[in-house]
Parts: sequence; structure tokens; C-alpha cells
Amino acid sequence: MTAAASAWIRRVHLHPASLADNTADADRLAAALKTELKADTVEIDLGLLRELPELLRRHDFRLRCSLFRDRGRWAVTGIDGAESPRPALGLAVDLGTTRVACALIDLAQGRTLLETAFDNPQIAVGPDVLARIHHAESPPGLRQLHRLLIDGLNAALADACRTAGVSPQQICAAAVAGNTAMTHLFLGIDPRWIIREPYIPAVNRPGVMRAAALGIEIGRYARVLVFPNIGSYFGGDLIAGVLYCGLHRKTQTALLVDVGTNAEVVLGNRDWLIGCAGAAGPALEGGVSRMGMAAAPGVVDRVRIDPATLAFDLHTIAEKAPRGICGSGVIDLAAQLFLAGMIDLRGKILAAGCGARLKTVDGIRHIVVVPAAQSATGLDLTISQPDLDSLVRSKAAMYTILETLAMTVGMALEEIGTFYVAGTFGCFIDPRSAITIGMLPDLPPARFVPLGNSSLKGAAMALTDEGCLEEIDRIRDRITYLELNVNQEFMNRFSAARFIPHTDRGRFPSVGRPATTNEIGLR
Amino acid sequence: MTAAASAWIRRVHLHPASLADNTADADRLAAALKTELKADTVEIDLGLLRELPELLRRHDFRLRCSLFRDRGRWAVTGIDGAESPRPALGLAVDLGTTRVACALIDLAQGRTLLETAFDNPQIAVGPDVLARIHHAESPPGLRQLHRLLIDGLNAALADACRTAGVSPQQICAAAVAGNTAMTHLFLGIDPRWIIREPYIPAVNRPGVMRAAALGIEIGRYARVLVFPNIGSYFGGDLIAGVLYCGLHRKTQTALLVDVGTNAEVVLGNRDWLIGCAGAAGPALEGGVSRMGMAAAPGVVDRVRIDPATLAFDLHTIAEKAPRGICGSGVIDLAAQLFLAGMIDLRGKILAAGCGARLKTVDGIRHIVVVPAAQSATGLDLTISQPDLDSLVRSKAAMYTILETLAMTVGMALEEIGTFYVAGTFGCFIDPRSAITIGMLPDLPPARFVPLGNSSLKGAAMALTDEGCLEEIDRIRDRITYLELNVNQEFMNRFSAARFIPHTDRGRFPSVGRPATTNEIGLR
Repeated sequence: MTAAASAWIRRVHLHPASLADNTADADRLAAALKTELKADTVEIDLGLLRELPELLRRHDFRLRCSLFRDRGRWAVTGIDGAESPRPALGLAVDLGTTRVACALIDLAQGRTLLETAFDNPQIAVGPDVLARIHHAESPPGLRQLHRLLIDGLNAALADACRTAGVSPQQICAAAVAGNTAMTHLFLGIDPRWIIREPYIPAVNRPGVMRAAALGIEIGRYARVLVFPNIGSYFGGDLIAGVLYCGLHRKTQTALLVDVGTNAEVVLGNRDWLIGCAGAAGPALEGGVSRMGMAAAPGVVDRVRIDPATLAFDLHTIAEKAPRGICGSGVIDLAAQLFLAGMIDLRGKILAAGCGARLKTVDGIRHIVVVPAAQSATGLDLTISQPDLDSLVRSKAAMYTILETLAMTVGMALEEIGTFYVAGTFGCFIDPRSAITIGMLPDLPPARFVPLGNSSLKGAAMALTDEGCLEEIDRIRDRITYLELNVNQEFMNRFSAARFIPHTDRGRFPSVGRPATTNEIGLR
Repeated sequence: MTAAASAWIRRVHLHPASLADNTADADRLAAALKTELKADTVEIDLGLLRELPELLRRHDFRLRCSLFRDRGRWAVTGIDGAESPRPALGLAVDLGTTRVACALIDLAQGRTLLETAFDNPQIAVGPDVLARIHHAESPPGLRQLHRLLIDGLNAALADACRTAGVSPQQICAAAVAGNTAMTHLFLGIDPRWIIREPYIPAVNRPGVMRAAALGIEIGRYARVLVFPNIGSYFGGDLIAGVLYCGLHRKTQTALLVDVGTNAEVVLGNRDWLIGCAGAAGPALEGGVSRMGMAAAPGVVDRVRIDPATLAFDLHTIAEKAPRGICGSGVIDLAAQLFLAGMIDLRGKILAAGCGARLKTVDGIRHIVVVPAAQSATGLDLTISQPDLDSLVRSKAAMYTILETLAMTVGMALEEIGTFYVAGTFGCFIDPRSAITIGMLPDLPPARFVPLGNSSLKGAAMALTDEGCLEEIDRIRDRITYLELNVNQEFMNRFSAARFIPHTDRGRFPSVGRPATTNEIGLR
């Protein structure tokens, strides 16, 4: 049974029909599968029912069945000959607002064949979730956003399958995780109520759908598990992340944070889980300045500044000439600017500390990160005072959210055993820099664990480990969602966090003093 | 709750959403319905999910939901405002080879609004099931037969709804019963293996389908319960008949027979059920002669012959001039011809007994039933010797099947408490005549109960009594199907039954001797 170790792939050899046993084809197959799966219900779609008599006889009643499960109900998602050389495939999807990532999985072996990603084609309609939600308020707008996403997915799948030498028709199960708004648009559901008080999604638990009903061009009888959400601002991507990092099974309390325009956080262990989400602003996504951009060749992702010489040592992705800076680069930059005495503890540019790198345009101060002569664009790449202000607000919001969540359960942030950071952001960020600016708590760097695309990895787990299906529901139901109450107390904490690293420096013992005194900046 | 007494119609008033309870629309509705129905799973189709946010708000969260159930899983099949004046409807269908009968039902009140019927449009392709099965062996032929039936149903429904002043969109549940081959064609499934040893249907338990998947133009989220079959020759129409007459719940043993080209029989009580089916030939359907036809105006349905004068007293449907004879008329005719001494106990025409009514054409004897001068066609309506031979074979087959079934359980036919006769045939047949020719056993006439269209009535029950859904499955699973073994013993019984009423006259004490001796006919 090694080749069919997966719960989703089962080989059955049916007893041939006879006058003494005239059970129908479908009922014969269902009975064999019920025994094999110890299941009460095995569902065969009408289309597959129509193909069944011919399929059974062509394969001499020796079959490899692909299956999927929706709670207690199993569905046959594909039938092939028992010895078919074509693997049955699964598809995991992380439905990002900016990028959509996919993994093709061999279901029998639980092995990823290929990963691919593409820009979310809805960007053409609106760069951010809010613009898209507004666009979706008209039925044609909703249909357009739905089609853009599905068409983009179909095209990417066709490409990926060509590369992997397989057919999209071999995909018979998919798992999709995304934030709540993206999930609604994926399903073609109007998300307007997500952004209107009291912020109600149309659906929390979309469950298991037919791929065909969504227009996804994979196996005709394929099923799609759509990850549940907890509310308008706490989506299936986070649930997938929890599933992947196993927070909900750990003895020691851990934290998972997904950093984006919203900071989404789950804190807990095997006994309790608490989650919240709050607006952190675009700064942490690389949207901080005109030069901010997503990670790509030529994008600055590492910055070191020599405090003595103020020489900038930049690293760019693929080591191309610099043309912008990504989120992790901005955090590095801010931390280094602070340590080099070029900005003060409020994030204000210190003219005295910047020397020739100071540039004032229309009365607004900038620090030149890459002079025009060295940049790929032929223009100075700069970070402006408003960019830095935005970054400080974002990092303060992030820290305040973390602090509030920890306070709610009566623990200090320092007690967190493992601090999982989701997303590409988590992979590239230097925890030291994030601590330096006071965005993340001052824990030993080893406690920070970057997860990569934990939404995609969690989705993939649902396809390779059958038990995950119940686990996903349990995680969703177990998380107590904390509605962030932005009251005076929260605002006080936020104000205290709007310093680098914090008003209360005692919380950040590891953060060194800057090279020159910059306690109070002079404009 | 009187207006919503039906299990399928539920009114729910949802608690409005608030910041303190941000459960999504769909999950809020599902939770309310789960409580209302005491159900574990309530399914909302993707299309309905898309409409839901608007529907909930338009109706101020006060809803009337139509539901249907597929084993433990409930599905929402329609949503309206709680006080909508438009009734939610059900549709029962008897899928006959010749006629398709429909009933429109008010689901809340369990009341039939209207019945209608139409000729099965597949007749254009093939008059009988066998011709259609062969036609369906090519994929375009199968699609054609499926479409003919579905299109015919849609057209009839549109008409019926117009008459009843309702919309087909109000229909949110349907139940369909038919023989196994018709059920396959209704589902668009190739029935070729039904007629090839070992006679395997593609499916025994089609279960609950989406109407939309079948192309039935009723409510978008309507479900269709398709009655299960027991084998290629024992269909859902019989299961519906058992459900309707309640054979499976009775203390006293009863029998249900559906007479057609096949005689399908169930014998049993609340403890056991046994069924069988066998070819009876076309004679009992009115297909016995060139003048045989289905019941319609001008068709002879009653015959009396004065043994003294040999005067024929005919009754025609709607009392129009005679133009043919239906199945019940033929049985009446044969019984009367026998009692009048015009045919002998082998069914052979007695020239001496027929007088002027004898007519020989190409050496074949005929009895003139209606002289040309009195017939609507201007031609003699006659019954020929081959017609009578065919009738005797058919009635002998019928009796032998009944006898074999009774023998199998070790009881005499005379012990049967109630003898249900399904179909229009059952309504028109005169039990005395059927006993006289030895087609039915010699029971007191009061024990024969005509059921009318018990297939349609059983289908309607499934829509008005929720508990029937499990009962249908239980009936199916409880019936022991007896494969008729046409061996020497069976042939001996068949030969003995090829006399009027039977070789063993002692079995038919109530049948009188004919007017003149006709123990042995003289050709």
C-alpha cells in the first residue's frame, strides 16, 4: 500500500457482477469504498455516474479512486485504472492580495512537484483590498474581479502543469487559503459588508466546493476546500498559518504574526488561542515610499550603515543595480539610520547627522539612500520624512497590537517561547532590525522563526494529511477573536510605541544607543 | 406554526449582527436552521451563498427557508421573506415509458394544487424501453433521449404552473419515480448494461441531485430525489408504490402488482418483503391487437355478452363511437367470450359458438367485436386468434409469476389479504374478468384494491412527509429480489396456466362454466 499511502487515493478491485449479485455499478463502487474508508457516505457526482459504466469496464473493475472529504461525507473526485502511471494531483493556493502562490502536489506521495506564483490580476482594478471591495459593489464589478482571479489561476495552472509534464485534469483536490475579502472575491461573493459596521463576512466556513462551480479548470469532479475565516479581518490564510506552525498543539505559548497592511496575530498554545487583527498601515509591506516595492531583482533588502563613516552598504536581490526597497529593507534602513544617528528617536531626520545625504525637496527632508549615479532608475532613491513618519506609525501599531494581545491574557511579550513570522516579510526581515526600531519585542533572535508562505504550506497540509480537515475547523472554532478596542488606553500604548525603539527603553535592553546622541532631534 | 407544518418549510428570524456577534451571514443562517432542524449539517449552495447578503437584508433577517434533506445533510433550496405570499412548491413525477405524470404540491400545506400528464416524448425515438436503450447506446442518442424527456418535462411544468398561477421557480423540491431504464435516461446515464447479462444498472440509489444539474427548470437550488431501484427490472416506480400502499407496514400479508409489458410484483408485510419481475408480454397493456390502444375517448373499456343471444354490450370511454379497445377491455372481452362459449379453455375461437361474428381473413379466424357500420373507423373492429393466443400467454405468465412468488414463501395465493393493483390498468380492470380468464387468483373481489398511479402518489408522499426519505431506503433494502429462474418447473406451471382459467379448475371455484360446453374447441 506504499504507493497509495494517502487517504485521498485508494485502489479498489471490485467483484465482477453476476446474476447472483446484481448490485449496480455505482452502488458496487460505493460499497467497496465505504469498506475501504470506513465511511457512511460516498458521493459520486452525476457526471461521473454517467461515465462510470464505461470506466469500470475499461479498467476491468480495478480502479484507482481519488477522493476528498467534506466532514463525514466522502466524494469520488476521479477514477483511473488501478495501475495508471498518471499521478493524481492536489493544488494548494495562497490567495494573496498582491501575489497568488500555488503548489502542485502528488497526492499519493504527499510530495510537492512544483511551486509557482503570479501577480494577483485584480491589481489592475485596485491595488488594495478596499478599492476592490468598492469595485465589487456593482454586480459586473464583482463578476470581473472573480473572473480575473479565476482566469489568472487557470492560466498559471496551465503553465505550471506544462512545466511539470502533467495535465490540470489530473488535479482532483484543491485547498485555498486567503484573507476574508480575497476569499469572498474568489468565491464570487459580494464582500461589501466586510467593511461596514458591524463588519460581517457573507460566510465564515465556505467548506468544500466543486471546482467546476467556481470555474477552476482542473479535474471535472475535483473538490476545493476553502479555508474558513474568523471575521472580516482574520482570514483563512491565518488559519492555514496556525495549522502549519502547529501553535494549537504546543505546550509552550507561541505567537504567529502575519505582517501586512493589517497585522494579524494569534497567540496561544494547545489549551487556548486568542487572535486579533489591526491596521498597521502600508509601511511594513514596502509601500512606505515612492521607492517601496515588493521583493524583486534590484530591490534593496539589506542595509548596513557604518556609524563612523556613514557609508551605506546595500544588498539588492539578485545583486542588480538598485531600483527600489522592499519592506524588510525599509526596516533595516530605519534601524541603521537610527543607530547611525541620522534619525532621532521619533524617526525625525537629523540634518546634522546626514551630511551630504540630506536633500530637501519642496521643504520636505529626504535621505538619499542610493544616489542617481548608482541607481537603476537614474534617479536618487530616497526615504522622506513622511515615509519615516509612516513607518514609525506602522511599527507602533504593530507593537501595540502585540502588547494588547499579550496584556489581555496577562502575560508579558518576553514570555513568548516562539515568535513565528509569516509571509515573505518574515523570511527577509532581520529580527535585530525589527527589534531595534521597536516593532517586535526584544526577544533573543533565535526565538523568531520565519515561516515563509505559511498560508500556502498550511493549504498544502490539508491535501497531504486527511486529519487536517477537522483540525482546520477546530482551530477556527478555538480561536477567541479579540476585537481591538481603540480606546484611550490603547492610544496611550500606541503613543508610547511611537518612539524608537519605545518610550520605555527598559523593554529593549538589547538595543544599543546610537552613535551620536539623538535623543532630541533638531530640525 | 400551522402554516409551516411541513418539515421542508421553516421560518427563522435571525438575530441581527453586531460588533459583539460578528458571525457571518451564512453561518448565522446555518446555525439558526441547525437549531430549528436539530441537524448537524445545513448546506447552502454557492449560488445561494452569493445571493445571501442581499436576501438577508432585503427581508430584514426574517426568512422563510425551503429545505430538503439527503440522509443526514440538509440543503437550503430557497429563501424568501418570512411572510411571502408565494407558496413554496414541490413536484412529484411518475416517469412512465408511455406517459409522464406530474403533481404540483404546496409544500407547506402538503396539498396537491394540480396534476398533469404528457406523452413521454421519447416515444418519437422508440415506442418501448428496449428500442430506447438501443438508441441510447450512441452518446448522441443518449443525449437526445435525455433532452427529449427533460424538455418535455420543462414544457409541461411551464404549462401547469401557468394554469395554477405559480412560477416554476417556486418549485424547490422534486421526487421522481420510474422504472430503472427510464430513471437512467432521466439522469442521462447509458442504460445498456440493463439488458445484457448479468443485467446490471449503472446505479441503484441515485439519491438526491440538484435540479439544475439535470437541466430541470425549476428553482435554482431545488433538489430532486430520484427513487432507488432494486435491479434492472424492478424500478423506483414500484418502490414508490410500496411506500404509497404501505405494504411494508402491514401485519397481514399483501401483494402489489404493477401490470405492464413486465409484471412487477411485491409480496410481504411488515416483517418481510419479496419482489420479482417477469416478462408478461404486451397483451395486458392493450397492445394485444391492431385494435388495442391506451385508454382514450372511443376506446372500449367494458364488454358484456349475453350468453343466450350473443348480443355484445360495449361501453366506450366518453361514450363515443368505438375505435379500439384498451387492456381492461380486452380482459373483459376474453372473459365474456369464454363464458359465452365463443372461445374454448385454450382460448381458441369456436366457430360454432360465434355465428355471424366469425370472420376468416387469410385463413386466420377473427371475432368481430364492432361491425364496420358501428365503428368510428368504418372498419370491423376484431380480435384475432393470434391476439387471443398472445393474451393467454400473457395472462399465464402473470399468474405463473404470482404463483411462483407465493410458492417461494410457502403460502397460497388465496391467503393474500389485500391485492393492490397499480397503474391505470388497476383502476379499469374488472377483477371478476381477470379472475375468469385466470390472470388473477380467485379471491373475493373486495380484496382487490386499485391504486391508480401509485408511483406518482408515492413520489408525492416523499415531498409531504419527511420521514419517507428513510422509509424509501428501507423499503429498497428490505425487498428480497427473487430472480425468476425459468426452469422446467416454472415452464410446467406456465403450461398449466395456459388454460382458461387454469388446468386446475379447483383453483377458480368462482368461475362459472361457459354457456355451452367448450372444454375442447373444434376448429
